[in-house]
Amino acid sequence: MALRAALRNKCRLSALASQLSSCSRNAAVCAPTVFVAQRRNNSTSTTLKVDYDQSTGVAVMHLQNPPVNSLSLDFLTEISISVEKLEMDKSCRGLIITSGQPKVFSAGLDIMEMYGKSPERCGEFWKAVQEMWLKVYGSNLITIAAINGSSPAGGCLLSMTCDYRIMADNPRYSIGLNETQLGIVAPFWFKDTMVNTVGHRHTEMALQLGLLYNPMEALKIGLVDQLVPEDQVLATAAQTMKKWLAIPDHARQITKTMMRKPTIDKLRSNREADILNFVQFITKDSIQKSLRMYLEMLKKRGQKKPE
Amino acid sequence: MALRAALRNKCRLSALASQLSSCSRNAAVCAPTVFVAQRRNNSTSTTLKVDYDQSTGVAVMHLQNPPVNSLSLDFLTEISISVEKLEMDKSCRGLIITSGQPKVFSAGLDIMEMYGKSPERCGEFWKAVQEMWLKVYGSNLITIAAINGSSPAGGCLLSMTCDYRIMADNPRYSIGLNETQLGIVAPFWFKDTMVNTVGHRHTEMALQLGLLYNPMEALKIGLVDQLVPEDQVLATAAQTMKKWLAIPDHARQITKTMMRKPTIDKLRSNREADILNFVQFITKDSIQKSLRMYLEMLKKRGQKKPE
Amino acid sequence: MALRAALRNKCRLSALASQLSSCSRNAAVCAPTVFVAQRRNNSTSTTLKVDYDQSTGVAVMHLQNPPVNSLSLDFLTEISISVEKLEMDKSCRGLIITSGQPKVFSAGLDIMEMYGKSPERCGEFWKAVQEMWLKVYGSNLITIAAINGSSPAGGCLLSMTCDYRIMADNPRYSIGLNETQLGIVAPFWFKDTMVNTVGHRHTEMALQLGLLYNPMEALKIGLVDQLVPEDQVLATAAQTMKKWLAIPDHARQITKTMMRKPTIDKLRSNREADILNFVQFITKDSIQKSLRMYLEMLKKRGQKKPE
Repeated sequence: MALRAALRNKCRLSALASQLSSCSRNAAVCAPTVFVAQRRNNSTSTTLKVDYDQSTGVAVMHLQNPPVNSLSLDFLTEISISVEKLEMDKSCRGLIITSGQPKVFSAGLDIMEMYGKSPERCGEFWKAVQEMWLKVYGSNLITIAAINGSSPAGGCLLSMTCDYRIMADNPRYSIGLNETQLGIVAPFWFKDTMVNTVGHRHTEMALQLGLLYNPMEALKIGLVDQLVPEDQVLATAAQTMKKWLAIPDHARQITKTMMRKPTIDKLRSNREADILNFVQFITKDSIQKSLRMYLEMLKKRGQKKPE
Repeated sequence: MALRAALRNKCRLSALASQLSSCSRNAAVCAPTVFVAQRRNNSTSTTLKVDYDQSTGVAVMHLQNPPVNSLSLDFLTEISISVEKLEMDKSCRGLIITSGQPKVFSAGLDIMEMYGKSPERCGEFWKAVQEMWLKVYGSNLITIAAINGSSPAGGCLLSMTCDYRIMADNPRYSIGLNETQLGIVAPFWFKDTMVNTVGHRHTEMALQLGLLYNPMEALKIGLVDQLVPEDQVLATAAQTMKKWLAIPDHARQITKTMMRKPTIDKLRSNREADILNFVQFITKDSIQKSLRMYLEMLKKRGQKKPE
Repeated sequence: MALRAALRNKCRLSALASQLSSCSRNAAVCAPTVFVAQRRNNSTSTTLKVDYDQSTGVAVMHLQNPPVNSLSLDFLTEISISVEKLEMDKSCRGLIITSGQPKVFSAGLDIMEMYGKSPERCGEFWKAVQEMWLKVYGSNLITIAAINGSSPAGGCLLSMTCDYRIMADNPRYSIGLNETQLGIVAPFWFKDTMVNTVGHRHTEMALQLGLLYNPMEALKIGLVDQLVPEDQVLATAAQTMKKWLAIPDHARQITKTMMRKPTIDKLRSNREADILNFVQFITKDSIQKSLRMYLEMLKKRGQKKPE
């Protein structure tokens, strides 16, 4: 296969601006309104803080990859390894995922991993995205997303892979798979995860338009399960976890596997093809060009005082 | 295969009465209440008026097959050809489908194409129904149904094949796949289209009972996406189209294909069997008899002052 | 295959306490609150009273297996045979299923059929559960559940196999597949039936948590179709039946088969494996132990003045 690696632009933007958007009242397409500069932090110990309480069997994972928890290859790998470790600890039963950064749960996949990179590196990155999804969506743990900020694209995916979603009731925050707005496309397993969450029709419209929903809208279509005041997101997650812990693990796990296995198997048996597909798409001249324009726009906006 | 062609009744009703029903408040089965006489218009140029605005890339297709836009073989073929032409015009990006007739979007499949016809003709007709659905449901264009009147049976199907549905907020209008009320059956791909729109449970009940929904009910279950005053249907469609046009075509089209291809492939790989199945069913003595009774009832009602 | 038949506890509880729970306001996991002692009645004629009205073609089946209509092997077999007989009577078109016992529609599968029994007996029992579901979910009759009491687990399954569900608007009643709360698991075809009724997301959460819904909550997610005052459940069912009878049987039946056949075929082609799976699971030491603890808890509660 001839990969089209027209990755001419070698410049590295020193800052990756990502997107924190607040959504208009009427479920319409939303324009990103808040952007912050990002600095990569390569220290594993500082980008993921996991508090594990042996007495309850519940771990709380704080995403803290400043400024907006962009899901880089390194960060995704950290998350996957961390979930795997918890999974292997027989005493651990539940996992709460939340953000240690202000205003954002996760801004989604790190665009810098897709822009100006070699096909090989793009493929490596995509494999890490798959790995994270397989680990969390297929986890035997009870997983609760404590969504204390905006959660576009990959951030929305991470939320949807959990068993339950509690979001901060802040109308400035938004959540959704907004890939098409950037000219890129959510793959079939992002789509399957969303169909399993909000059904076929909402997914069709949301994905075509790249819709970002404010918390009220997200609750209405079932994209999140509960809204609480911002300062109570984590406490509510802990409380909710208790209800889930009351169910015998073996029965709950068999049931969860029954519900999710067909969706997981679809990716498992298509990982190579899915990676190839992604690399071919993302390395196209036209896609690289639109990513460059997007990054330049973000950079300009980021230089202004962010909202 | 022995086709049962008990098509004895050779009389041609000079007028095909079709059904415009308003639906009772409580989502119950609705009896047709308004009927109008129909005159076939064989002039291609007059039954389909397509206004194409090169500057916006948006075409508006006005259905005007008097009196109720019944979907005859000729009319279906015109629609398919027209959509195909727009599809091939690279400058065209969006299509709004609306009615040029008062009170009705489309009364659905032309019963005269199913009553007293040869098996061959029935098969030809059904192929045209398939063709129209394949063209519109699989269209790369942004498709919006501006439903400015009642939309039973095939009219509902045509609406559901679009990307977005805006309906006139007139409680006298109704929409739904009411085939069973006439003793006939919606085939699997009508069913699949409805399941993709309103889910399995609503589809099961709607199809078994042949339910027609008034606009409020249709909005509630997601059969339409938006209600607006009758005189604003087309303007709202044009405004909505702008939002969809803001999304890069390539990303939106890949996403649309991902959502709809499995459903489309199911028909594509079963067209012959589906035609055979339809012809065998519709040419049965018992079905022809119930169609005759239905037509006679419509004729009687049509002779009274409508509504 | 080596069946693990650690069925040491030979004692027979003279009374099988089953569960009638009223559900808390907030859709949370519900603890069973009412328990009554059960006496098995082996007389076929008295546990199932079927009133068939030849003039309307509608049969009303009263479940009266005191005290809580637990679905034992015998009772399930009676139901299956009764439905089959009605099905073969060409004059019969509709079936209403309701309870002749106070406060409960059906408490679900009889736990005594799963506790301390031989693998052979367990397999026989499970086959009867499958048979009942196949008969009712695949019935050509119009089936309406008149849910005049609580309907947990197998009672909820029986309700969901019908075409329409009318429930008593009594907040003390509840309905849901609460298997995981007892440490057991709803099999794939229970799950499929629920997905067809309330969609994937509600099913995933309901089955993992073993949720019991009060009537308002059940209506909201679509688990039941209508709520009426307790003394009007049966009359409303009869009235609703008239609407369904207005649809030509042949069209309605073809449509019903189209909607349900894929789900039915999934079990049909996996009956043996499903039975084996159930027997292996239910005869495990750990599962038998948790059933014993559950039964002992019920017994204690049953000895107190119920509620």
